[in-house]
Amino acid sequence: MPQPLTDLVAAVGADAVLTGDATLPYRRDHADGTPVGDPLAVALPSSTEEVAAVVRICAEHALTMVPQGARSGLAGGANAIDGAVLICLERMRRVLELDAVDQVARVEAGVLTIDLARAATDAGLFYPPDPGSWEISTIGGNIATNAGGMRCLKYGVTRDFVRELTAVLADGEIVRVGHRTVKGVAGLDLVGLLVGSEGTLGIVTEATVALLPAPAPSAGLSAAFPSAAAALAAADALVADARRPSVLEFLDAGCIAAIDALIARGDAPGPRLPVAEALLLVQSDAADAVGDVRHYAAIAAAHGATLVETADDPERVDALMDVRRLLHPALRAIRGASLNEDVSVPRSQLPALLEGIAALGEELGITIVTGGHLGDGNLHPTVAYDADDPADVARATRAYLAVIELALRLGGTASGEHGIGSLKLPAIGAELGPRVHEAQRAIKRALDPRGLLNPGRKY
Amino acid sequence: MPQPLTDLVAAVGADAVLTGDATLPYRRDHADGTPVGDPLAVALPSSTEEVAAVVRICAEHALTMVPQGARSGLAGGANAIDGAVLICLERMRRVLELDAVDQVARVEAGVLTIDLARAATDAGLFYPPDPGSWEISTIGGNIATNAGGMRCLKYGVTRDFVRELTAVLADGEIVRVGHRTVKGVAGLDLVGLLVGSEGTLGIVTEATVALLPAPAPSAGLSAAFPSAAAALAAADALVADARRPSVLEFLDAGCIAAIDALIARGDAPGPRLPVAEALLLVQSDAADAVGDVRHYAAIAAAHGATLVETADDPERVDALMDVRRLLHPALRAIRGASLNEDVSVPRSQLPALLEGIAALGEELGITIVTGGHLGDGNLHPTVAYDADDPADVARATRAYLAVIELALRLGGTASGEHGIGSLKLPAIGAELGPRVHEAQRAIKRALDPRGLLNPGRKY
Ligand SMILES: Cc1cc2nc3c(=O)[nH]c(=O)nc-3n(C[C@H](O)[C@H](O)[C@H](O)COP(=O)(O)OP(=O)(O)OC[C@H]3O[C@@H](n4cnc5c(N)ncnc54)[C@H](O)[C@@H]3O)c2cc1C
Ligand SMILES: Cc1cc2nc3c(=O)[nH]c(=O)nc-3n(C[C@H](O)[C@H](O)[C@H](O)COP(=O)(O)OP(=O)(O)OC[C@H]3O[C@@H](n4cnc5c(N)ncnc54)[C@H](O)[C@@H]3O)c2cc1C
Repeated sequence: MPQPLTDLVAAVGADAVLTGDATLPYRRDHADGTPVGDPLAVALPSSTEEVAAVVRICAEHALTMVPQGARSGLAGGANAIDGAVLICLERMRRVLELDAVDQVARVEAGVLTIDLARAATDAGLFYPPDPGSWEISTIGGNIATNAGGMRCLKYGVTRDFVRELTAVLADGEIVRVGHRTVKGVAGLDLVGLLVGSEGTLGIVTEATVALLPAPAPSAGLSAAFPSAAAALAAADALVADARRPSVLEFLDAGCIAAIDALIARGDAPGPRLPVAEALLLVQSDAADAVGDVRHYAAIAAAHGATLVETADDPERVDALMDVRRLLHPALRAIRGASLNEDVSVPRSQLPALLEGIAALGEELGITIVTGGHLGDGNLHPTVAYDADDPADVARATRAYLAVIELALRLGGTASGEHGIGSLKLPAIGAELGPRVHEAQRAIKRALDPRGLLNPGRKY
Repeated sequence: MPQPLTDLVAAVGADAVLTGDATLPYRRDHADGTPVGDPLAVALPSSTEEVAAVVRICAEHALTMVPQGARSGLAGGANAIDGAVLICLERMRRVLELDAVDQVARVEAGVLTIDLARAATDAGLFYPPDPGSWEISTIGGNIATNAGGMRCLKYGVTRDFVRELTAVLADGEIVRVGHRTVKGVAGLDLVGLLVGSEGTLGIVTEATVALLPAPAPSAGLSAAFPSAAAALAAADALVADARRPSVLEFLDAGCIAAIDALIARGDAPGPRLPVAEALLLVQSDAADAVGDVRHYAAIAAAHGATLVETADDPERVDALMDVRRLLHPALRAIRGASLNEDVSVPRSQLPALLEGIAALGEELGITIVTGGHLGDGNLHPTVAYDADDPADVARATRAYLAVIELALRLGGTASGEHGIGSLKLPAIGAELGPRVHEAQRAIKRALDPRGLLNPGRKY
């Protein structure tokens, strides 16, 4: 056995070091169209100290490291790199502490998002960030990508709920950054720097996150519109309303058709969807949620909604939202593979974004369907393609990059929540500009001078 | 005229370069007990380009720079340094843009916080962060300190409302970081890094901040308690409540007496205060604010409040809060000078903090009075002293540092919102620990290799 592997086995035990075919399940995330390398090994540490030991061994042998949560990512950021050690935190799943007075939870980074949310609920509290993937993603991955979700419109993103982090730096040192307190400004904001750093500045091993008192049960509505423009206008009115919906999601005609096809084929449960040009899904979890939803339904109707369904018992509310959760599998099912955009634009530019996407689709002879977090302007236009057809791959890639260029022209960003990973690397330079890009790299060098942590991603 | 001054005059005009006695009003902020140097000059640029020109001149001549907003700071962070150029943004006061669809304002960094808040209100929108100093502080200073305020309990701190920044780096280059969009994760979070960096990483010249739809008019209450412990217990119940007060402030017996003395002397308007061991000031701006306040009043009564006053017309609500706004002048008036703590502890440790402070006061023979943002655990214990009595200065300094040590022992931080500046520099090493402290300095070096921006502060 080569020396690094011997050292890894000594540090974490033979059952926690995988090589050869055993590494296959750990090689890629959910993003199609991203490069996947051949790793040296997968390490499965069970504690912060074991993560630190693994990192020190990698540093000693100048081995590249790829931190991994659950590989539910959509940017290729957790994919294997040739010769790298994949450091996967799946064994670090303990909820360490839940404090109702301080309103915080302290968890190991490998905890699934939903397990954290459930632990909070069991204590009468509430962890708001709810990425669509929360049944499979880890809190460490959510932190490393600054994950969003449906409720972010009202509550904010993962960053807004992270108080304190334990992380292992590139040299294997364990640090604690941030503070358990609600507020704190001693030192630069290293928590904010680690959040969204996609495994390039350190490996997060433990997190203290903020919780809120549990809100009222949600009420919801689904509204079908005769045009995307009408749905966008309704959304503007909903966002301008002081009641603040907790959820405001959008599906265009292509998304509706793709999800309906999944249901029609029996690949997903649920009633068939209405034929419509756009669907809005809206929720409130305010004290008067039922009154809010009635008010929102009236706004939808005033903007030409043809079919409005409301719900206030939890199961029906969930059923209305289930449609949205089918989006990802539905779009992938269209042609086997898909490139998933994550563009975000100022809300005033949403009509221009949708019109521009339609025009691009026609120009390139490719269908781009769009759904996502309309309330905060973060949409997921998706290009379905056939991975075995090189011409199709080229066309899809062109469309993918063209949508990003469009979003940037509209004052937006290539990524609202999924991160850059390797998928969006070709776009990052144009978005940041040379001086900011260089400043980012200078910070990366300051914390990881040899570039061992997840190189070739993010910057 | 020495060359640097000639260059500065050429860059911004003679009327925008002050020297000698003309610099006197620009030499210090509101913090007693901090060193004040003798600057080379004050520069008063009127645009981002002029700031960049000034910085390039300073960089060329290796001159130290001190960015300044309104010098309302409480940590000595904007004080003059010997030989430095003070770069004050008081001439950059334009509100550049207000967009109701995108719910953002774009302003020059020298805009007063209250002017931003008013511009938002005029457009039917709402800028929540409200530091007690908002009539005099600038948004650039708020950003550089990550200022908090009374409404932060419900809405979060300045960081939570900053989307995009224009800043001039130490080499005079102008950068734009962040994004106008609600969400965005392309690149590391340089906005988060600049926020709270206290003028050490760059000079913020323009900011795009998030706004919310205007909330309902606030209702409020004031509750007097027979013991601090009873007030703390009531606060726990208020924070655990899903209704979420927008404001939850605390004054101990010493604060009440000091404010009452100010009013009794006729140095401030308003009715005399009740004799009490503690006062809670609570507000709601939710749809049912009046109902909320009734509910909060019942909670206060159930925890032993002896006197509860509620208000729902805006003027009366304001009058209840005015008491809190008198805190800073009242405490300074006790002995002429004061050292203002800004400690923050996990809320569960608040009783231990108050008990520890009382014990310290007895031990050191000095009175420490405490008020502040109880809802988020950020209090401002204050040590009044006579600046002309060296023994008193020494005692006050000892007490000041001992309170910080106490807060750290309780899992807290030396600074919730005011920043480190020079005042808390002796405490920063212990709080961060050597490895994190060094990581912070490495980031500082990456962005300002020669250490020209506000040296000797923050780290
Ligand atoms: C069906 C579906 C729906 C989704 N919906 C959403 C959504 O609504 N919102 C959203 O934001 N995302 C969504 N995603 C994307 C994805 O789930 C998120 O990016 C998630 O945060 C990734 O978590 P993970 O644990 O799987 O991380 P991984 O995929 O394993 O890793 C993601 C990145 O984080 C790094 N990383 C992981 N763990 C750590 C750690 N402990 N320390 C340092 N770096 C680490 C990796 O190196 C990589 O760069 C969705 C994905 C799917 C498949
Ligand atoms: C009565 C009173 C009440 C207060 N209440 C609160 C409160 O409730 N909450 C709170 O957080 N603070 C409070 N403060 C403290 C103070 O007002 C805040 O720290 C405020 O944010 C400082 O703003 P300023 O414009 O005066 O900045 P300054 O005092 O001029 O500067 C503060 C720091 O920021 C840097 N800086 C200023 N402008 C820029 C810029 N454009 N770019 C880069 N760096 C810059 C300076 O170098 C310095 O380090 C209070 C102060 C007083 C006197």
